[in-house]
Amino acid sequence: MKTKAQDYNKLVLLDESVARSRCENIRKAMREAGLDALLVTDNANKYFLTGRVFTGQIYIAADGEVIYFIRRPLHLEGDGVVYVHKPEQMAETLGLNMPQVLGLELDITAYNTVERLKKIFIGAELRNASPLLRQVRAVKDAAALELLRMSGKKQTYVYSRIPRLFTEGMTDIELQIEIERTSRLQGCLGQFRISGDSMELYMGNVLTGDNADTPSPYDFAMGGGGMDPSLPVGADGTVINPGMTVMVDMNGDYTGYMTDMTRVYCAGPVEALPAQIRKAHDCSIRIHRELVKMLVPGTEAKALWQRAEEIAREEGLHEYFMGHRQKAGFLGHGVGIEINELPVIAPRSRDIIAVGNAVALEPKFVIPGAGAVGIESTYFVHSDHVENLTDAPEAIIPFD
Amino acid sequence: MKTKAQDYNKLVLLDESVARSRCENIRKAMREAGLDALLVTDNANKYFLTGRVFTGQIYIAADGEVIYFIRRPLHLEGDGVVYVHKPEQMAETLGLNMPQVLGLELDITAYNTVERLKKIFIGAELRNASPLLRQVRAVKDAAALELLRMSGKKQTYVYSRIPRLFTEGMTDIELQIEIERTSRLQGCLGQFRISGDSMELYMGNVLTGDNADTPSPYDFAMGGGGMDPSLPVGADGTVINPGMTVMVDMNGDYTGYMTDMTRVYCAGPVEALPAQIRKAHDCSIRIHRELVKMLVPGTEAKALWQRAEEIAREEGLHEYFMGHRQKAGFLGHGVGIEINELPVIAPRSRDIIAVGNAVALEPKFVIPGAGAVGIESTYFVHSDHVENLTDAPEAIIPFD
Repeated sequence: MKTKAQDYNKLVLLDESVARSRCENIRKAMREAGLDALLVTDNANKYFLTGRVFTGQIYIAADGEVIYFIRRPLHLEGDGVVYVHKPEQMAETLGLNMPQVLGLELDITAYNTVERLKKIFIGAELRNASPLLRQVRAVKDAAALELLRMSGKKQTYVYSRIPRLFTEGMTDIELQIEIERTSRLQGCLGQFRISGDSMELYMGNVLTGDNADTPSPYDFAMGGGGMDPSLPVGADGTVINPGMTVMVDMNGDYTGYMTDMTRVYCAGPVEALPAQIRKAHDCSIRIHRELVKMLVPGTEAKALWQRAEEIAREEGLHEYFMGHRQKAGFLGHGVGIEINELPVIAPRSRDIIAVGNAVALEPKFVIPGAGAVGIESTYFVHSDHVENLTDAPEAIIPFD
Repeated sequence: MKTKAQDYNKLVLLDESVARSRCENIRKAMREAGLDALLVTDNANKYFLTGRVFTGQIYIAADGEVIYFIRRPLHLEGDGVVYVHKPEQMAETLGLNMPQVLGLELDITAYNTVERLKKIFIGAELRNASPLLRQVRAVKDAAALELLRMSGKKQTYVYSRIPRLFTEGMTDIELQIEIERTSRLQGCLGQFRISGDSMELYMGNVLTGDNADTPSPYDFAMGGGGMDPSLPVGADGTVINPGMTVMVDMNGDYTGYMTDMTRVYCAGPVEALPAQIRKAHDCSIRIHRELVKMLVPGTEAKALWQRAEEIAREEGLHEYFMGHRQKAGFLGHGVGIEINELPVIAPRSRDIIAVGNAVALEPKFVIPGAGAVGIESTYFVHSDHVENLTDAPEAIIPFD
């Protein structure tokens, strides 16, 4: 389990061929976008390119070398490693070799950080490289798939243990804490990477009964009031009783690449749940079946949303589809290093399903008075089939 | 424990007088900085001003009203609430009442978000309001102090339980998972707010033996290799054995305002630890005693760093002070809604200690071959005395 000591000093922890191929994919996209160079500062993108997180920047020339400008940790070694105390020192290394068109992650890098970089890359035309990097990362290679498979395997194992974590009289947060512990003991890293800084979540979401219908400020598929207005999402202290559902949507980051998975549980027999709840849950499973058929390279992502909405409408469940008091604007999303990758499955999405996409689909319903239902699974799009990375029983699972 | 249902609909959850006084403090700073208006987008600042997190912006006019532009959650009510789907709609509400000089959080807001705002506030001169907001938030009022006290009380209680969480043969991560669970059961929110997006941490840091000497990429006082290169900090799976120290520096966010606290534990008797370890730990306690005397309004923050360094040097421990292979550049920091608030206790800090500061001091040492020692406590600066918010035994604590 422990990392070998020598690894601490090696900058690039990816297999050499993987690192080279990822960099080449980015270079190809750079040439198409007319970039001479790209400066990567985001942790998720640095991890994508090297297999580790560090403080510093990666400079990629469209037709030249890669330079790793590192501030911390000390003692890293590898081709292209240059230690700098401050970004201004990059200019010394680059010398007269300054790019004319420079790509930066403008969707996520702080304004003042970019202004500082402008003074280093004087005269360079800046372009937004965030979409380019998101596009490249949306197509997972074999190394990423291996990590996703491992996360999916561990996450499904943890979910299989959930019924025995429940004891009568428990609150939603007490159950969540036991799931957190079990996840961590199975190797969950805890880290829940979300692109952008406005969405906050701690280890996932357990929604019980009517709390599922409490609007949250965040752009997650489901809400919940949370334990405190400083983090108003998820479990709110509701006692879990028969007749309500418990929706579990917990952190699947066991490897640096996360899967996303939701299952629904209940105290007491499933038959004691309102008929509407069971109908809506079956509808979610039906939507999965239909949408998986559409996870074919070339399909428009928005077609999946439309088909799901159509089914919900057919079954008279449209009012509860993707929320009731407050609705989510999407029903699926790419996953990988971050939880909100491409493609986005939403009504106005312009994304196209491609080989190598890892897509979490989460058609869910909120039935007032009873709770949330529906499942989420993460699928991998191969050229000729779809692989379920979170393959586990889909029906509502009674705790006892 | 559950939030009352009606609270979900009330926008401002702070007492009216607290909300008014915080806003007035910001207005005063705005007038000094020559701002006509300020647009707040950061979650931490929105929580400071309202007592809750939402998606949207707060618009504060230097001499006029406050407008809450809200996107999510739905159903919030209160004076000045305006629902918007996109930021561009702010212009409709403001009409011709556009500011000439607008403050934005330029240190943390994404470049493209600011560019989008520029097109809404056409012709406005933009100034960086991040420092202003940090300054105002550095001075905690009675309402903030109450939440800090509650977090400190819960955090010290959890730390008192740590010895009974240890079992022989445990790894550092296994111990950390039990501390996480105990913290959560005592109400820890899990959320660990850090200003900026480059520092990542999950629930805190448990460092055992030589892992304390592994450099991490993050700007925390101590490092550790972590369980995975995607989050290379903290516990790395080291088995806890006699002769090494276990430094516990875990999440103290129980209320939205976090305290920060570190204590050191060991398996086996304290006497079995190397003499150097015990000497360095005593030195840390001595530094606390000396620095607390200096936590007087008007003191330069850098003087505290200098005094601490002087003591470490006097005792021949300078080589190990604030790290060994890689050293931290600070030994203390303000705490509150985020873990890295003002004042910063660092060699080149320009901060001045003020009444209302909540300051975590963490003089620590890394002794190669044995581990990290030293304590961290959070102090509140009153006009005539210093209050320890994490008052608990300071000596090295044996597990048995």
